[in-house]
Amino acid sequence: MSRPRYIAFEGAEGCGKSTQAAKYAESIGAVLTRETGGTDIGSRLREILHDTANDHLTPRAEALIAAADRAQHIAEVVRPALDAGKTIVSDRSVFSTLAYQGYGRQQDIDEVRKLNEWATDGLWPEVVVFIDTPDEVIAERMSRRKLDRFEAAGDAFHERVIDGFRTMAAADADRWITVAAVGSISDVAEQIRDALAARGSAS
Amino acid sequence: MSRPRYIAFEGAEGCGKSTQAAKYAESIGAVLTRETGGTDIGSRLREILHDTANDHLTPRAEALIAAADRAQHIAEVVRPALDAGKTIVSDRSVFSTLAYQGYGRQQDIDEVRKLNEWATDGLWPEVVVFIDTPDEVIAERMSRRKLDRFEAAGDAFHERVIDGFRTMAAADADRWITVAAVGSISDVAEQIRDALAARGSAS
Repeated sequence: MSRPRYIAFEGAEGCGKSTQAAKYAESIGAVLTRETGGTDIGSRLREILHDTANDHLTPRAEALIAAADRAQHIAEVVRPALDAGKTIVSDRSVFSTLAYQGYGRQQDIDEVRKLNEWATDGLWPEVVVFIDTPDEVIAERMSRRKLDRFEAAGDAFHERVIDGFRTMAAADADRWITVAAVGSISDVAEQIRDALAARGSAS
Repeated sequence: MSRPRYIAFEGAEGCGKSTQAAKYAESIGAVLTRETGGTDIGSRLREILHDTANDHLTPRAEALIAAADRAQHIAEVVRPALDAGKTIVSDRSVFSTLAYQGYGRQQDIDEVRKLNEWATDGLWPEVVVFIDTPDEVIAERMSRRKLDRFEAAGDAFHERVIDGFRTMAAADADRWITVAAVGSISDVAEQIRDALAARGSAS
């Protein structure tokens, strides 16, 4: 009915974006996928990134592994789906790399952006749903999880990541939709559906 | 006695460079290392690159995984050794990526170069020993090996790789030493020692 779109869901760990991405994808019959780990090769790369034994992984190597995952994912999953007329809903995207490996790890944002421009061959999400969850909700959810390498990276890192998302959302309001994740899962899902419908996506 | 140097050995699979790199490193008491797989994280990345099951790995993802291995290797092994006054002898380096992922996979050489400039934070080998082995010798050695993903990539690919090495060696004669690998292992080792001594390296 409508043209295919590439929609990314972004936010901090524990913000609820995976749940919301899945609900939205199901509601419109879109292809649900994710970064990192949206391909078999990507799953092996994701294991390296998340393994707490790799606390000595350097910021540049981390960014390059994430970009490799993305290059494979775009070429193997995202572009073919769009070419076949299907809408993609991706749990994280290149903007997570800018937030985590750029803002979070304090790498030059422009360098990380250029690197990913090459990795994606220029294909970036058309719409980004940023789920902005109150800090205390995230802290409570994290306290119940076994933390991986990113989740265990410390409060200052995570504050920079969230600030990065907020900075990008404010600077590129045509692409980003910020949803304040308050209320029930259904309440938030409804907000997301309404916001995406207002941007011209299938609803 | 002499200042530390970063020396890379390059060439096709089966050219004898690993043997020669090890002999030379031992002869001068240098740190022997390699790309890919010169670190524990790099070993996991190398497995992905060489796995014949990954025949669908895209050229850009391949280049990014190799660059990630390199970023980790430079930061964890090469730079600390040089800073400690030790000479590094590396079995392959960034120039293998230019040859394989650039020339071999027909990616834009300049893009691959820029990507690796960031990965290495600007640290490139000062001297490159290119072991140029007659094609029929390589073909004979390969016929006795179980081939990995690169080795199995076909003759046209490998011709482009070798041409890439030759092109880079010709264009940058101050950095590259080409050794024609004819004669015994000892003969070739002696040629290499003489050539490196003439360039001012410890011998």
